[in-house]
Amino acid sequence: MAEIKEATVAFGVLDETSDTESRVALTPDIVTRLGRSGISCLIERGAGAAAHYTDEDYAKAGATVAPRDEVIAKADALGFVDRPSAETVAKLRAGQWVIGMLGSFTDADYVDALDKAGIVGIAIERLPRQLSSAQSMDEMTSQNSVMGYKAAILAADAYGSFLPMMTTAAGTIRPAKALVLGAGIAGLQAIGTLRRLGAVVTAYDVRPASKGEVESLGAKFLDLGLDFSKGQGEGGYARALTPEEQKEQQAAVDAKAAGFDIVITTAKVPGRRPPVLLTKAGVDGLKRGAVIVDCAASELGGNVEGSAIGTRTTEGGVTIIGAPYLASGVATTASDLLARNVADVLAHFVRDGVLSQDPSEELDAALVVAGRAEAAGTAAEEK
Amino acid sequence: MAEIKEATVAFGVLDETSDTESRVALTPDIVTRLGRSGISCLIERGAGAAAHYTDEDYAKAGATVAPRDEVIAKADALGFVDRPSAETVAKLRAGQWVIGMLGSFTDADYVDALDKAGIVGIAIERLPRQLSSAQSMDEMTSQNSVMGYKAAILAADAYGSFLPMMTTAAGTIRPAKALVLGAGIAGLQAIGTLRRLGAVVTAYDVRPASKGEVESLGAKFLDLGLDFSKGQGEGGYARALTPEEQKEQQAAVDAKAAGFDIVITTAKVPGRRPPVLLTKAGVDGLKRGAVIVDCAASELGGNVEGSAIGTRTTEGGVTIIGAPYLASGVATTASDLLARNVADVLAHFVRDGVLSQDPSEELDAALVVAGRAEAAGTAAEEK
Repeated sequence: MAEIKEATVAFGVLDETSDTESRVALTPDIVTRLGRSGISCLIERGAGAAAHYTDEDYAKAGATVAPRDEVIAKADALGFVDRPSAETVAKLRAGQWVIGMLGSFTDADYVDALDKAGIVGIAIERLPRQLSSAQSMDEMTSQNSVMGYKAAILAADAYGSFLPMMTTAAGTIRPAKALVLGAGIAGLQAIGTLRRLGAVVTAYDVRPASKGEVESLGAKFLDLGLDFSKGQGEGGYARALTPEEQKEQQAAVDAKAAGFDIVITTAKVPGRRPPVLLTKAGVDGLKRGAVIVDCAASELGGNVEGSAIGTRTTEGGVTIIGAPYLASGVATTASDLLARNVADVLAHFVRDGVLSQDPSEELDAALVVAGRAEAAGTAAEEK
Repeated sequence: MAEIKEATVAFGVLDETSDTESRVALTPDIVTRLGRSGISCLIERGAGAAAHYTDEDYAKAGATVAPRDEVIAKADALGFVDRPSAETVAKLRAGQWVIGMLGSFTDADYVDALDKAGIVGIAIERLPRQLSSAQSMDEMTSQNSVMGYKAAILAADAYGSFLPMMTTAAGTIRPAKALVLGAGIAGLQAIGTLRRLGAVVTAYDVRPASKGEVESLGAKFLDLGLDFSKGQGEGGYARALTPEEQKEQQAAVDAKAAGFDIVITTAKVPGRRPPVLLTKAGVDGLKRGAVIVDCAASELGGNVEGSAIGTRTTEGGVTIIGAPYLASGVATTASDLLARNVADVLAHFVRDGVLSQDPSEELDAALVVAGRAEAAGTAAEEK
């Protein structure tokens, strides 16, 4: 972040906490950092409490702690963990900026509503992750990393045996065997954390490139004997497989999963229903006492057939934890990282002390999904 | 265990599971091992279910799965995770053996009742731990080790930040600072597990000898600047401090604890109320978001002032987990280890194929607290 002395941008963050959300899009550290760039911060009362940041912490760092409506009224830009509700959007005014995970891949109506209201919508989910200038803004990466860590901790807590090998006077306890399905950011962090705890880890991903990454962490790559080359999709995510490919993959994974004590699944394709990696047959093939953590669990299903949000135990004694909110479960670290991501996105758009767009810049072209400024000589309205 | 072909000893294990107990004193592996020594096993239906061992597993290994009363009726010796209830004791017969944690240090009435009923009581809590022949029977060590592991996992799960240091595109997350109070078996295992997870660990114990053990695990020893030399008590446990020494220690610990994110306390002195290591002032001095796991929590209090069984959060945002049942939370490993411990105790008393006492042996002299055989030429009744 460049030091901009004369900026007059006010950045506001609201309380988004709920039963499943403990994160906050601003931390006291970031208040201080933004202050040095001339950006003043407003935060709703109690917004950081669930992430262990008090109103006093924010005030001490230089933020104005205020009621929700005052934050909305005074902020030039608002930053979100997720995105503002329709109710909150109704209170925004033309020219105001909104930075968050706007759901622009799946919810065109929402983006249209922002656009019609004259609100500038910055959709972090559209970040061109391969740009090195974008890496410090990469909320998907930071939050998936936290998710993968927490998935491993959760699995260790739910599993009835030790993860590490232990040699005691009464004999030797063998190490747990863990299988990580989906070796993106979350999967790699899960691998690393399971390995730290002493588990023997195997991992699988459709992207052939992931083999080297998995092995570099000391885990074994699961060879299904299938070829889904060109598995790499847009933006560094895995592509969706065809129905036939999915069936083949499921049968192979089901067969290989039987020997594992812990299975962590992390395969999400943005804007799509998560692929089923492990079917009921695969779950039933697991040992009594095995633990599955399905990070892709949702109302639409998850990576494991029959998984739902929450914990259940099958008749065969397998515990399935459907855990989509894991990043929120490590609220302080998750907030630390995402507040930096959001602040860096904000700072990118502060030019000469004011919020502005430059449609000729790759980041601007990718991120601005509503209220686009017209590029010189071209019509900006395109989607 | 020696191979004894012609033994006719029947060993029985009952279902002890409850809301807070998932362990079982016999596993299928041990059924097989005892079978090779000529000891047949009886197990109550469903006794191993909570530890993920099914009746079929036991039957396949050669055990007789039977209703409770049948196990009691047919067994020559019964093994316990804990000890039989008064109701169960009432069903036992003279000459029957009971092996378990009989509470003989604190509950003389219970031991007297066994003795009067002519039951042979083998009290594992009296194991002379320093004897190398006793090490494979050491249930306190095996279960405290499981407890220490679980305490670290629980702390990691409850803590809102990462334990390891992480360097990301959005900045660096500092590692968690953990303090382990009480560096016995449980404390050392907690240190090891926290270190595996990447935390920076400091530990304290009154026994001067523990400094080297703590440091050998890569943790720092907390120097309180106090001298409690001769801190080592009987049987390898810490001795109880005098009230004055306790006050001094508390003030010093309270002052030093302030900088830590995670505190795990493991100081139990068998048969005594656990010493308070951290007072309310110490708890209030911790950072918002800090997590305490008090393994000594009980109805009588724990190592932390105001700790109770269960989880609560102080006004200052410190989470205190009173967790006396941690070994049960890793039920499979805990049962594996304790079943070996109990079986080795049993096997010690099987001589020439029958259960017998040899009062001249150190182990027998220590362990038999009820129904003692008279030593040749001496009266056995002494306590």
